[in-house]
Amino acid sequence: MKRRGVLAVISGFSGAGKGTLVKKIMETYDSYALSISMTTRNPRAGEEDGVHYFFISREQFEQNIADGKMLEHAEYVGNYYGTPREYVERQLQAGRDVILEIEYMGAFQVKKMMPDALLLFVTPPSADELYRRLKGRGTETDDVIAGRMKRAIEEADIVNKYDYLLVNDDLDTCVRETHEIIQNTKYSVERNAEFIEEIKRELEVVNS
Amino acid sequence: MKRRGVLAVISGFSGAGKGTLVKKIMETYDSYALSISMTTRNPRAGEEDGVHYFFISREQFEQNIADGKMLEHAEYVGNYYGTPREYVERQLQAGRDVILEIEYMGAFQVKKMMPDALLLFVTPPSADELYRRLKGRGTETDDVIAGRMKRAIEEADIVNKYDYLLVNDDLDTCVRETHEIIQNTKYSVERNAEFIEEIKRELEVVNS
Repeated sequence: MKRRGVLAVISGFSGAGKGTLVKKIMETYDSYALSISMTTRNPRAGEEDGVHYFFISREQFEQNIADGKMLEHAEYVGNYYGTPREYVERQLQAGRDVILEIEYMGAFQVKKMMPDALLLFVTPPSADELYRRLKGRGTETDDVIAGRMKRAIEEADIVNKYDYLLVNDDLDTCVRETHEIIQNTKYSVERNAEFIEEIKRELEVVNS
Repeated sequence: MKRRGVLAVISGFSGAGKGTLVKKIMETYDSYALSISMTTRNPRAGEEDGVHYFFISREQFEQNIADGKMLEHAEYVGNYYGTPREYVERQLQAGRDVILEIEYMGAFQVKKMMPDALLLFVTPPSADELYRRLKGRGTETDDVIAGRMKRAIEEADIVNKYDYLLVNDDLDTCVRETHEIIQNTKYSVERNAEFIEEIKRELEVVNS
């Protein structure tokens, strides 16, 4: 049975280790395709179009948003950044899984555009540990800590809109569990509606 | 983090290999507790109460149903058979997972009593293969085949009320996938509401 790939969106508290987790999953398993972001900022030395980013004009980016071609997007210091839908869709149709590491507002934009996206939220193993990580190593300014804290409170309020809560205690365990959750999603009944319809048709033919 | 065990209900088409699947999961992994059924039929030679079945009177069984003490039950050739709720609940609270292999009417009774139950449906790998298995080895009477066919058509209509569709092509693969699906359910956001509330409380304390 040829199965459509899974689009997994990973968000999480500051210090939960999202970046390391996603990197390790991509290195460990071969079913994943990298998502390439689209941006309006200028390429830096050594950056290639279609490899590091898709570089496009501000006008084209805004047209893409209007045409529903962006799975999610945000503006950051005067430039747009986002995930082009078509590229991701091609990977999924080829059976490859795609992971997007984005914050919750982007995650909910993606879910709206692609209702079968899987939303994963990564957390440190305890509230104490979360607090330690938010405070950092004592080198951050009070402003940075206050910003992280405000953000964490917002995030804690919307975790219940995610599908799974991943506890990143031991990295290797979390990598394996996250991979299994993404793979097992392929067996959900909603994703197998076509197979079920085929069985129904066959049974009706045989029974008539 | 102490996690509640998962109650997994496994149903499936005739010939899908449910029995073998459940037996192999219980043998392979040690997180599972056997569920012991309750019945009103008389014990046979060698059968022990609380080991093979819980043997009780018809009056007591009917009282149990009325009191909401049965997760599911059915009548078969004049006797009641069912799953006592308290025994299953004790296993789950101790962190052990419980698998019930029952047909769909029982599965939906369980889901009503325990909304966090996970419903798994096992199918052969294709409609062709299902048809071959329904027809059997040519030794069954036409009545038996007609009965299986009628049942399969009913079942195909309610598969979409299950959570996952397990394709039993290679048994070992199906055993591993089923185990992973059951285990990963523990990371669903709904099952971690308490942990999320704890993090929220902690963040509020720290922030005040």
